[in-house]
Amino acid sequence: MNEQWMREALKEARRAYEKNEVPIGCVVVSDGEIAGRGHNLSQGRKNPLLHAEIIALDAAAKSGKLRRGEADLYVTVEPCPMCMGAILNARIRRLYIGADNPRFGAAGSVVDLSAYRAFNHSVIVERGLLKAECGALMRDFFETLRAD
Amino acid sequence: MNEQWMREALKEARRAYEKNEVPIGCVVVSDGEIAGRGHNLSQGRKNPLLHAEIIALDAAAKSGKLRRGEADLYVTVEPCPMCMGAILNARIRRLYIGADNPRFGAAGSVVDLSAYRAFNHSVIVERGLLKAECGALMRDFFETLRAD
Repeated sequence: MNEQWMREALKEARRAYEKNEVPIGCVVVSDGEIAGRGHNLSQGRKNPLLHAEIIALDAAAKSGKLRRGEADLYVTVEPCPMCMGAILNARIRRLYIGADNPRFGAAGSVVDLSAYRAFNHSVIVERGLLKAECGALMRDFFETLRAD
Repeated sequence: MNEQWMREALKEARRAYEKNEVPIGCVVVSDGEIAGRGHNLSQGRKNPLLHAEIIALDAAAKSGKLRRGEADLYVTVEPCPMCMGAILNARIRRLYIGADNPRFGAAGSVVDLSAYRAFNHSVIVERGLLKAECGALMRDFFETLRAD
């Protein structure tokens, strides 16, 4: 079941890849269905806010299905601080991460924002779901960039 | 000059107050003019992403005036982790903060995201600009809430 949702996030990541964006995709799942989905669009739109998670959370909020404490989020790569903060603000219940992000990860790799009880919400973090596929897409992307 | 921009942020904060939103306002300044402005709208729109800083940064990005490393951001209350992460992603040069946020502040009060060199950008943080006015607006708001 969880893999099925991460496969949807991977579909989004591939859409980013096809647009020459860093290939990260995300879905927000609430009540057994996708409440919002998104892929990274920050380069093309020249807007540093347009990460996959922000787009998916915004879509879920606008759909009215982002119930506090009841929605789960699947993302192919560990969130940056902005997205991890958005996940906490949205009271996401479970966060499923594909590949780690050793450079910018804010769910443990560089800083662990989920560990700050002070932020008034704890999210359950599960790492490594379809890690190989999520990570391979990133490696392919950056290898192609270097080869250009 | 800096006070002038914080007064614009305060105007935004008052707009939030009038809508029964937590009264926080923000302006992004680039090249001597306001490139984006915003106030907190998260309650009314039921969207946890709609903090003042996110709205102002999004407007600045859409205006094409959010030049990396050249824009400054003025916000009446210390940013939460989401907004501090957005400020780092947007390569804001200087961050001017009015009042501290002891509960959710991510520019030093709870966590200091500006201290992580790993996030590939350092922002210069200046605290306490029009602190009394910025803080008084927050206190008034929460006292009125409690009195209701």
